Amino acid sequence: MRYIGEPHHDGSALYVSEQAPELGSRVTLWLRAPLAVGVTGVHVRTVHDGEPRYFEASRTSRDIRGFGGTDVWWRAEITAVNPVTPYRFLLTTGRGQAWLTAAGLVTHDLTDASDFRLVCHQPPPAWMADTIVYQIFPDRFDRSRPMGELPDWAQPRDWDRDPVIPSGPGTAEQFYGGDLDGIVQRLDHIESLGADTVYLTPIWPARSNHRYDAASFDTVDPLLGGDAALHRLSDALHARGMRLLGDITTNHCGDAHEWFTAAVSDVNAPEREMFYFDPETGDYESWWGVKSLPKLNWASERVRAAMREVLTKWLGPLDGWRVDVANMTGRLGAVDHNHEVAAMLRRTLGPQAAFIAEHNHDATPDLDRDGWHGTLNYGGFTRPVWTWLRGSELDLEHFLGVPGGVPARDGLATLATFRSFAAHMSWRSYRHSWQLLDSHDSPRIRTVTGSRERHLLALGLQATLPGTPMVFAGSEFGLTGVNGEHSRTPMPWNRPADQDMVTLAGYRELLGLRRAEPALRHGGLRWLHADADCLVFARETYQETLLVSARRAPGEPLAIGMRAEGVHNAGDGDVIPGDGPALRVWRLTH
Amino acid sequence: MRYIGEPHHDGSALYVSEQAPELGSRVTLWLRAPLAVGVTGVHVRTVHDGEPRYFEASRTSRDIRGFGGTDVWWRAEITAVNPVTPYRFLLTTGRGQAWLTAAGLVTHDLTDASDFRLVCHQPPPAWMADTIVYQIFPDRFDRSRPMGELPDWAQPRDWDRDPVIPSGPGTAEQFYGGDLDGIVQRLDHIESLGADTVYLTPIWPARSNHRYDAASFDTVDPLLGGDAALHRLSDALHARGMRLLGDITTNHCGDAHEWFTAAVSDVNAPEREMFYFDPETGDYESWWGVKSLPKLNWASERVRAAMREVLTKWLGPLDGWRVDVANMTGRLGAVDHNHEVAAMLRRTLGPQAAFIAEHNHDATPDLDRDGWHGTLNYGGFTRPVWTWLRGSELDLEHFLGVPGGVPARDGLATLATFRSFAAHMSWRSYRHSWQLLDSHDSPRIRTVTGSRERHLLALGLQATLPGTPMVFAGSEFGLTGVNGEHSRTPMPWNRPADQDMVTLAGYRELLGLRRAEPALRHGGLRWLHADADCLVFARETYQETLLVSARRAPGEPLAIGMRAEGVHNAGDGDVIPGDGPALRVWRLTH
Repeated sequence: MRYIGEPHHDGSALYVSEQAPELGSRVTLWLRAPLAVGVTGVHVRTVHDGEPRYFEASRTSRDIRGFGGTDVWWRAEITAVNPVTPYRFLLTTGRGQAWLTAAGLVTHDLTDASDFRLVCHQPPPAWMADTIVYQIFPDRFDRSRPMGELPDWAQPRDWDRDPVIPSGPGTAEQFYGGDLDGIVQRLDHIESLGADTVYLTPIWPARSNHRYDAASFDTVDPLLGGDAALHRLSDALHARGMRLLGDITTNHCGDAHEWFTAAVSDVNAPEREMFYFDPETGDYESWWGVKSLPKLNWASERVRAAMREVLTKWLGPLDGWRVDVANMTGRLGAVDHNHEVAAMLRRTLGPQAAFIAEHNHDATPDLDRDGWHGTLNYGGFTRPVWTWLRGSELDLEHFLGVPGGVPARDGLATLATFRSFAAHMSWRSYRHSWQLLDSHDSPRIRTVTGSRERHLLALGLQATLPGTPMVFAGSEFGLTGVNGEHSRTPMPWNRPADQDMVTLAGYRELLGLRRAEPALRHGGLRWLHADADCLVFARETYQETLLVSARRAPGEPLAIGMRAEGVHNAGDGDVIPGDGPALRVWRLTH
Repeated sequence: MRYIGEPHHDGSALYVSEQAPELGSRVTLWLRAPLAVGVTGVHVRTVHDGEPRYFEASRTSRDIRGFGGTDVWWRAEITAVNPVTPYRFLLTTGRGQAWLTAAGLVTHDLTDASDFRLVCHQPPPAWMADTIVYQIFPDRFDRSRPMGELPDWAQPRDWDRDPVIPSGPGTAEQFYGGDLDGIVQRLDHIESLGADTVYLTPIWPARSNHRYDAASFDTVDPLLGGDAALHRLSDALHARGMRLLGDITTNHCGDAHEWFTAAVSDVNAPEREMFYFDPETGDYESWWGVKSLPKLNWASERVRAAMREVLTKWLGPLDGWRVDVANMTGRLGAVDHNHEVAAMLRRTLGPQAAFIAEHNHDATPDLDRDGWHGTLNYGGFTRPVWTWLRGSELDLEHFLGVPGGVPARDGLATLATFRSFAAHMSWRSYRHSWQLLDSHDSPRIRTVTGSRERHLLALGLQATLPGTPMVFAGSEFGLTGVNGEHSRTPMPWNRPADQDMVTLAGYRELLGLRRAEPALRHGGLRWLHADADCLVFARETYQETLLVSARRAPGEPLAIGMRAEGVHNAGDGDVIPGDGPALRVWRLTH
């Protein structure tokens, strides 16, 4: 192995005694360092009320096996003084001082930006850390009945014969007629994948197939079966111990929404303050200038009250929310209500509801603020996976707006990206963020990778790295798509040729592995090896270590350094084989 | 040269058309890239209201000479949409995509933490960017008259015969009797250094020689000459076109302060709310548990009104404030008023007053928020300079609380530290922060470096890098000191043996150079070369480039790559000589 022999700490239970500390509580921290690093002393630096303080760590021992030699353990106690208490380690070695932060070990000084974080905000509901999310775009999943009469805007399409229009006229109007009872009849399929949370993109009455232009947040679109269908779906899921999440646009609503129609029709309407109208021109702010999506004004008490009511009203059938355009919510020019609104809404929702924010580039400045529990981790997971596993023939116009397609990068750049994002959020936010390979807003992972083997390798990373896997319905069959619209393929229930059963089996096995192995859900993450074509890491609890190797191309076998038990796609032994693409998992019992 | 051939941008006027943009204004950005990098396309990414947007840059030419070959210039326009609009560059090269942020060029993805920043907050007063600050600890600078009757706590010391007590009993009580009229008689000296702003540590009546335990913010300590003496000093400075700054503790006051004595004597006093009293025990919060420094409670409207009054009352004689313990101000446990208080006070002070915050580790999270104009840049300047230029015999207990003394580091680690801190603040905050080699809170730079040569090299960095040089009175004579208390040596006006005239001449020459050369005050900063013993950088305006080499030890001569005119400690030529320690400056005219 090209062994990353760094001293290590992360926020997991192996290294931090209290995963949900309260303000003022004492917390024990552990750090491990390979013997070869020659650490002779360790201090923890915390920042209390803005001022750094140092606490000496003491050498200790723990009955845990390491890689690449014997690890020396250090232990210190600190106090969770602030809602977010930053900390880092100062290591003294024969070669001088070094800092260990969440970005790794450095021998120069650096700002606090990548410090570890002890977070005292109310923790996310416990079920979130164990869950696997299955994303459904309701118009395309399944339908329980033939299409009935449609509103004027909708253009009916044949489920299995009409290809999805990927752009231009008809994109938002093409209508396949999926409904919520259609989902009910497929719960066995969803459960068979290992998923136990269903996340629905919007279900509101609207004037598009995606329904992000909600005409109301108070009822479920009758085209989907209405409120009653939502209750049937929710009840069916809850009966299986599964959960259901909705999708809410806190940034805007549709221009057919009752709030907006009232506001736009009367300058004196009380709803007028809910939007940003120009008093001179009557023009109003909207999402990216798209006038059908008027932007909500969070300075308005009426917006606050109305949205609080909406978000709580659906708790019961729903177990929480994925928040659309969370990154822009409450932000306009000189105004920024974002953190305050996120915290207000999360507190309103209470301790049992999930609250996950969409950001397509960098959510880290908005996390760990008692608002969003995590983000859709496009920047810190999706994109690095894509750049490492993209196919050679890939020719996409952009990645979620980043010009220049999807660059091809090696394992070292991929690891650097994983670490850059993970280092700027707490462990808690990292593990509660959704790690997705694709979504209704992106090309399909199968199209990006261009092969089943690399698709399953990407899935393997999703199943074994920290963070909540989110599977976009259809990718388990190997469906393809060159952009978000194009990826919203109606499910191939009646098209056996479009069902790649090997891929499906891979999803069941790898997501099943995640469900079976506590270390994959709760373990720490330690990077052990990186080269252009192979990444090796450990997921560790106090009880055991799972060793994961992800190899995108054949290469030299790598010595593990000790004997390991094969768990997935691997036999017992002490070598990582050189063939690939392959994802392999071994177990080391401490 | 080991040439750092990176594409370059910084926030200076050479690269950003508008140094004080208003919200909504259009700003032109330029980027330069060495031809060898092979940049084929450039996009600017900004973040508007939380969402990234890309703008294509176009290739352009500028009549500016580069190093290491021809530079290609790119140009784009963006809008200052938010009070702080982050931006970065996406470069397409033959070898793929790369990002240029304030942290440099990387070929992986990274969070927005090091993005460049376009700041629309009201800019600092124009004079601040040109100034050189001279710090005076009033008890030790000079006195205009023999010591009179002293209060009980004060222990009189002989100015020239009694050494400073560096720790233990008497440290805060030893009293040398410097006063404000003593400063008036030394203005020629201060001006001769090139300094044009005098910053005084506290001048309030107190019960210590440092006066941070203010008994009042409403009068000047009679032991210093009282209010009248402050006016005399201010008038004398202003008559010379110089300025005067005070030192205020927004975090706490002294336990003899009228607010606290009222609060502590009566649980029903209106002043009670100004502090954090425990309703059960009557105990109160204080700075680091030091009970003579009770912490102010910024939730109290009374604190806000009183401090606003204090800060504005002294404007006139004072031109602004250095804020003590700014990092802890308004922060306690779950409460954090810091940013809001800093902004409220800065706005109260108006556009002509300086407002500089003390932070001893990392101010970057608190800058660019319409509050502090800059910080005392211990973390991003003092410490890296110390670690690079420390003497071999140095044995200090800690660096401002960091255990393990001052580590010895090479030029690469020093550069990495400079860049880490500069990358996490706007160019505006960087250049308005105070670059100090030492202060009344630290060992003297002469003690740290252990030699006149390295001391003058450190001074050379202070005089030529961005940021406002702050000179601690006495260091121009080469005074020594092992800690903050010990460094508060009475000035050696009457001790010629303690006046190193070579060092003094160095201060006059190097600070004079800064005053003479606009590029040293307003130019961009481009790092050109780094090895263990030598750092080379350019300070550039549209008109000219100053090339600075800082060498701590002899080494190989370095080719500049073009002919340059010697400006300081250098002749005309195209080679950086190998001897050292030496700081040298050349000029290239475009």
